[in-house]
Amino acid sequence: METVTLSLPEAYALAMRALSANGFSEDHAAAVARNVTGGERDGCASHGLWRLLGIVDTLRKGKVSPDAEPQIDDRAPGIVRVDAGGAFSLLAFERALPLLVEKARRSGIAALAINRCVHFSALFADIEPLTDAGLVGLACTPGHAWVAPAGGSLPLFGTNPVAFGWPRGDKPPFIFDMATSVAARGEIQLHQRAGKALPEGWGIDRQGQPTTDAGAVLAGAMLTFGGYKGSALAAMVELLAGPLIGDMTSAESLAWDGGAGGLPYGGELILALDPQRFLGAEADAHLARAETLFNSMQAQGARLPGERRYLCRQESECQGVTISRSLFDEISALSE
Amino acid sequence: METVTLSLPEAYALAMRALSANGFSEDHAAAVARNVTGGERDGCASHGLWRLLGIVDTLRKGKVSPDAEPQIDDRAPGIVRVDAGGAFSLLAFERALPLLVEKARRSGIAALAINRCVHFSALFADIEPLTDAGLVGLACTPGHAWVAPAGGSLPLFGTNPVAFGWPRGDKPPFIFDMATSVAARGEIQLHQRAGKALPEGWGIDRQGQPTTDAGAVLAGAMLTFGGYKGSALAAMVELLAGPLIGDMTSAESLAWDGGAGGLPYGGELILALDPQRFLGAEADAHLARAETLFNSMQAQGARLPGERRYLCRQESECQGVTISRSLFDEISALSE
Repeated sequence: METVTLSLPEAYALAMRALSANGFSEDHAAAVARNVTGGERDGCASHGLWRLLGIVDTLRKGKVSPDAEPQIDDRAPGIVRVDAGGAFSLLAFERALPLLVEKARRSGIAALAINRCVHFSALFADIEPLTDAGLVGLACTPGHAWVAPAGGSLPLFGTNPVAFGWPRGDKPPFIFDMATSVAARGEIQLHQRAGKALPEGWGIDRQGQPTTDAGAVLAGAMLTFGGYKGSALAAMVELLAGPLIGDMTSAESLAWDGGAGGLPYGGELILALDPQRFLGAEADAHLARAETLFNSMQAQGARLPGERRYLCRQESECQGVTISRSLFDEISALSE
Repeated sequence: METVTLSLPEAYALAMRALSANGFSEDHAAAVARNVTGGERDGCASHGLWRLLGIVDTLRKGKVSPDAEPQIDDRAPGIVRVDAGGAFSLLAFERALPLLVEKARRSGIAALAINRCVHFSALFADIEPLTDAGLVGLACTPGHAWVAPAGGSLPLFGTNPVAFGWPRGDKPPFIFDMATSVAARGEIQLHQRAGKALPEGWGIDRQGQPTTDAGAVLAGAMLTFGGYKGSALAAMVELLAGPLIGDMTSAESLAWDGGAGGLPYGGELILALDPQRFLGAEADAHLARAETLFNSMQAQGARLPGERRYLCRQESECQGVTISRSLFDEISALSE
C-alpha cells in the first residue's frame, strides 16, 4: 500500500484546508482539525484524519452548522450549559471549558451540558483537558438508536460511550473511553465490507435472533456489553445526557436524522470534580494511594487504559503520522 | 421448611432488639433496622434480616463502632463530607442527606463523601431517598480486594458496586445497583456451601487459571463483568470512592481487616443532580422523554431495574415477610 507521512503540523494544515474550503468558520475548523489530528497522532485511526470525509459529507448534506457561535448559559453555581446551535460539539466544549473548570474549583464538583451538538468525536478528547487541569472527569453522550436493551430485541440505545479520567501529575492521565455496546458500529461495518463473520454476541437480527452476519446486525440491533449490566449503563447515559440536560435520546436523534445517514445529534454531559477541594492539604497523600493502585495493576500485567495511546503519541510527535495515499488524495480533493 | 411470618413493624422490632441488646446506640440501631427490614421487604434476602447475624458478629469482633456520632464537614459549595467514625455508613448517610439535597438544589449538582464507614448495605438504599426528593443519584463504594483487574490474576478491586437512580414522580424510581464483578461474593459462598460448580467466567484460581470451583475462586480471584470494560469501571470506583474522598482502596481495606473476616471499611461517594436546576420551566417536558424511553424498553420486553423489588415491596406491606424458623431463632438469640 502506498502511504504518505505527514508531520503533525502538516496533518493539521491538511485538515484545516479541507474544512475551510467547505465553509467551516475558522474557529470550528480549528477545533475539528485539532481533534482529528490528535486522534491520528494517538493511533486511533477511527477518530483520525479519515473522519474528515464524513465531516464534510455531513456539512454538504446540510446536517451540521459550519459556523454557529456557541451560546454559554451560566445556569447555576454547579452547572454550565452551552448551546452548540447545530454545530459540532468541539468548539462548544472549548468555549465552555474555562467556566466548567472555574466552577469545579470553586464548588468541588460541576457539570457541563452541551446541547444541540452534532457528535463525531471520541470523549477522550473532552476528558484530557480536565485531567490536564488536575481534575477528575466523567463524560457521556447518547448516539443513534442502534443497540437493543437487555431483554429486548429492538434498537433503542446508542453505542452510548462513557469516559472517565483521573489526573496523575507529571504522568499521562488514567483515562478510559468505552462504548456501552459490545463493539463500535464502525467495527461491524468493517466486518461487513471485509465479508467476515462477527464474533458471537455482538448483535441480533431483525427477528431478535443471535447472528454473526454483519449486515443482519446492522439491520437488526447491536447488543450491550456485559448483558443487563451494560444495558443499565446504556440507559443511564440516555437519561443523563438526554432528558436531564434537555436534549434528545438516541431514538429521537435517529428519528431527527430521518434516514439521511448523518451523525448523532443531541447532548453531552461532562462532570468535573476537584480533588483539591475534596482533600485540601491532604491531597498529595491521598493521590499517592491511586498511584499504588495503578502500580498494583501494572505489576500483575494489567494495562492501564490509554497506555497504548500515549506511546503512539510520543512516536507521532517525532515521526509524524502515516496514512494511505488514497486517503490523502481523498482528503486533498475535499479542498479542490 | 418451617417458617415465621412477621409484619414489617414486627420485623423492625426484632432487628431493633438484636441491635440494642448488643450495644448499638438508639440511632445506629434504628438506621440499621430500617435498612435490613427494607431489604427483606423488597425481596432481597441477601440484604435482609439475615444480615443481622454478620452485623452483630462484626460488633462483637470490635470491628465496628456501636455509637460513633457522624461528624459533618460542610466542605465546599458542592461537597459534604461526613466522618462515620468507624460505625456503619447508614446513620452518617441519614445525617448528611439534608445538606446534600440542599446543595444539589442550590448548585444543580453536589457530592456526599462518607468516610471511615463500615459497609454492609446495598447502595439502593442510598439512592432512593434522592429520587424521592426528585433528584438523580449516582453512588459507588469499594470493598475488600477480591476481584482481579482484566489482564491480571491477583485480587485488587472490591466487588465495587455502582448504583444510579432517576426520579419518576408518582411512579417507582428507575434504580439500578450492580456489582462490577460478575457475581456477588455471597453467591460464590452459596455455591461452595451447596457443593455446586460455578458458572464459567466467575473467577480464577490462585494460579490465575479459570475455574468453576467455588473454593478455588474464593482463594484466588473473582472476575469483573464484561472483561476490560467492567474492570475499567471497577478501577473508577476505587478512585472515586477511595483516593478522591481521602479514603481507602479495597486492597487497603482488606489489609486493615487483617484476616478478621470483617466487613469492608472505607468510603462511599454519592452524587446528586437536580433536574429542576438543569431544566427550569422545561423540566416536565424533558422528563417526559425519559418516560418514553422507559415505555420503549417495557414494550419490547426489557424490564426496568427495580421492577421486581417494587412488586415484592407491595406484597410485603400487605402480607409481611416470611423467614425460616431457624433464622428467626438465631436472630432472637442475639438479644438473649
